[in-house]
Amino acid sequence: MRQGCLIVVSGPSGTGKGTVCSALLSAHPEIAYSISATTRSPREGERHGVNYYFLTKPVFETMISEGELLEWATVYGNYYGTPLQPIKEKLAAGQDILLEIDTQGALKVQERFPDGVFIFLLPPSLMELERRIRGRGTEDEASLACRLQAAQKEIRVAQQYHYVVVNDEVKTAVAKIVAILTAEHCRVEGNQDLLRMVSESQ
Amino acid sequence: MRQGCLIVVSGPSGTGKGTVCSALLSAHPEIAYSISATTRSPREGERHGVNYYFLTKPVFETMISEGELLEWATVYGNYYGTPLQPIKEKLAAGQDILLEIDTQGALKVQERFPDGVFIFLLPPSLMELERRIRGRGTEDEASLACRLQAAQKEIRVAQQYHYVVVNDEVKTAVAKIVAILTAEHCRVEGNQDLLRMVSESQ
Repeated sequence: MRQGCLIVVSGPSGTGKGTVCSALLSAHPEIAYSISATTRSPREGERHGVNYYFLTKPVFETMISEGELLEWATVYGNYYGTPLQPIKEKLAAGQDILLEIDTQGALKVQERFPDGVFIFLLPPSLMELERRIRGRGTEDEASLACRLQAAQKEIRVAQQYHYVVVNDEVKTAVAKIVAILTAEHCRVEGNQDLLRMVSESQ
Repeated sequence: MRQGCLIVVSGPSGTGKGTVCSALLSAHPEIAYSISATTRSPREGERHGVNYYFLTKPVFETMISEGELLEWATVYGNYYGTPLQPIKEKLAAGQDILLEIDTQGALKVQERFPDGVFIFLLPPSLMELERRIRGRGTEDEASLACRLQAAQKEIRVAQQYHYVVVNDEVKTAVAKIVAILTAEHCRVEGNQDLLRMVSESQ
């Protein structure tokens, strides 16, 4: 059976990874989603096993020490990480799985899954990124400036990705990611069984 | 300015390269088509500069000796070849160009344009390929057997391509080629100007 694709969508904070990934998943429910684990408290409406796996610190730390996380990091004193097992299972079952992750995490994932499809989501401009982050209303001026500077640095990391998609319009960005996935499914390396089948079909 | 993509669609005779490429071009008139040169006589309805460049033998031979052909071959005493200049010009102008070519020609093109996008068009099965070649009514039993044997060998060459697309339905095959082209346009290597522009946009 052919392996699934690990699709990694990453990019600077504020680029709209979440919106693009949600739209992609609702248009393509056949794609699985890699649910992150965290020790932070659920926000209103967030559900365990849907938005995140909400874990206690001891459980998370056991997962770290047992190598059950593909990558993990601490943000404002909380752990965030990507459980490895569900990804391995889905890929082996031939299912595509989407991982939405920050740029630091993506590079760690790449070490373990170099055959993953790494997509860098790019804001149309830094000005537009600023507008979007301001729109959230969650950052003060100092942290906004800090985020924009970080974004500028992060864009350099795009060189280590396979694809770059501008998120000017969510619909267009989703269509491009779907096209990338279709193309990846057509790669010769992943179609050895098909080639064998056709050449022996007489 | 970004370079165009050279899209090479190839595959065994009878797979339907011509039909798929025509459908692709009429749906996407922005893609240019690489017109072959030949010394054979035009068939009814064929026009110089549209279907082929119909050339005399001396002209063709001069093109060979002056290196103006990307590849060439003789088939039943006639020359067939791919003029290099229009391809170079279109790529430099940022235009995508489609080249429909047999599997031998494709490998020669790959030597010169390793960055081209090489798509192997595959029949759904050899039985279906047989049915299609029979449908044309142009081959006797001996040459049919010969073509099918050749097809089986040619499918092994698919390993040297980037993508494989099954031509079960023309519409589906065209959609896959369009997706491959969209994905290729998103490749990080071809988007250096975009990355530079966004990271300097503040």
